[in-house]
Amino acid sequence: MSDPGLTRVVVTRGDGAVDDALAVEEPLEIRVDGKALAVVMRTPGEDLDLAAGFLWTEGVIDGPDDLAALDHCRDPNRPNPKNVVLAVLAAGVRAGAERFERARREMYAASSCGLCGKATIDRVFQQAPPLPRRAPLDPALVVELPTRLRGVQPRFAATGGLHGAALFTRTGELLVAREDVGRHNAVDKVLGARLRADALPLAECVLVVSGRAGFEIVQKALMAGVPALVAVGAASSLADRLAREAGLDLCTFVRPGGFNRHA
Amino acid sequence: MSDPGLTRVVVTRGDGAVDDALAVEEPLEIRVDGKALAVVMRTPGEDLDLAAGFLWTEGVIDGPDDLAALDHCRDPNRPNPKNVVLAVLAAGVRAGAERFERARREMYAASSCGLCGKATIDRVFQQAPPLPRRAPLDPALVVELPTRLRGVQPRFAATGGLHGAALFTRTGELLVAREDVGRHNAVDKVLGARLRADALPLAECVLVVSGRAGFEIVQKALMAGVPALVAVGAASSLADRLAREAGLDLCTFVRPGGFNRHA
Repeated sequence: MSDPGLTRVVVTRGDGAVDDALAVEEPLEIRVDGKALAVVMRTPGEDLDLAAGFLWTEGVIDGPDDLAALDHCRDPNRPNPKNVVLAVLAAGVRAGAERFERARREMYAASSCGLCGKATIDRVFQQAPPLPRRAPLDPALVVELPTRLRGVQPRFAATGGLHGAALFTRTGELLVAREDVGRHNAVDKVLGARLRADALPLAECVLVVSGRAGFEIVQKALMAGVPALVAVGAASSLADRLAREAGLDLCTFVRPGGFNRHA
Repeated sequence: MSDPGLTRVVVTRGDGAVDDALAVEEPLEIRVDGKALAVVMRTPGEDLDLAAGFLWTEGVIDGPDDLAALDHCRDPNRPNPKNVVLAVLAAGVRAGAERFERARREMYAASSCGLCGKATIDRVFQQAPPLPRRAPLDPALVVELPTRLRGVQPRFAATGGLHGAALFTRTGELLVAREDVGRHNAVDKVLGARLRADALPLAECVLVVSGRAGFEIVQKALMAGVPALVAVGAASSLADRLAREAGLDLCTFVRPGGFNRHA
């Protein structure tokens, strides 16, 4: 098995020992301009997509031109360079890392306007670009998308243990799909892949996720300028509010027979 | 609806508008000895259980005697005191908050032994107490537990949008069940509830979770000294390794017809 995101173990099932495929989970450190910014537990294999998407949806960079370089650490003197990604910001966007540090500090100290859903939503609006306005997605397409996502989740098919995310065009063409043990990571990988391919903006795209639509998933769609989000699972109260205030077309509980549109 | 963890919104379904229940998601700040330690996105309603469990499974406290006080903020001059929990450590355990800060710093800076699964596992063994040795759970009980957990998830029944966790005795008696939009939070609420009830140790208990068994879920079981973990979903590679090295009885993919035991 050559996929670095999968491994095999022997488990006991009934009275016998059986060979089982598991999703790999390992820490990844993202360093920006020589400084450790975050460690995420992720499934290896698309680390550069993940790092690019993370930096974008967390507000450190605004687009591909803000990244001067992005690569795995290749320092043979480091014990596990494959678990480290090094990003170099372009000249003039050093503010990005400062912005991220500030956001992180804010999350660890009571903000003056109060710690609540409203303040949390306001912080996203301070950072996200204006969302392009698009007509609601065609319901016939919406109900198809989860099945089509499932068709491009080979690691899930092997293990049952990863989340999937994908970008489709508004007419149903698959652009990119990614999997990860973390559902936020799967979204960051998808968005980061488009950023790295210089295939922006995403105004004509739909983000599809295999799980629920929590606040942070909606936040990531907004930061990347994706005007539509289709989730197999439920929305949280804060995700619902953020989507309505931003004008995001949020469709949840999507099944062949129907779905909920939060509008 | 008096449950602070649920709210109602109007969504569009097909051609009509329908009333829908959503799980509430709001930030909670946990302050220790006057200092903000963490903000988690959680479902309100069992905040003190969540805070106690979080402090315990993250290694800030070792047991109930380490907590001198734990309460919601009641300062009328703060904008949203209901989203803030104040913890006061007992004299002599100030080291706990320092330990947490160190762990957090370590996660944001490359550790000298290398960033990898092994180092991540080693950090848990440095903090967790020795796990009590118990015989493997009775398979007839294991296959029953997810169904029994499902029976005490009223918010999931209303919304389909929360994770559940529960502690049972090794003979199948339900001790406590909790729900949250975050699966780690649901576990912290369950463990914190037992800590606050002074109902430790948990050596004769089984932790049951509605989702997958990732690294952090296994870590929390170990920090709380629970020797058995039953998960409806899959294990990750790192969860499998940590469980085996610790001697935790980890049962995954539990269905009426069988399950995988990671041993």
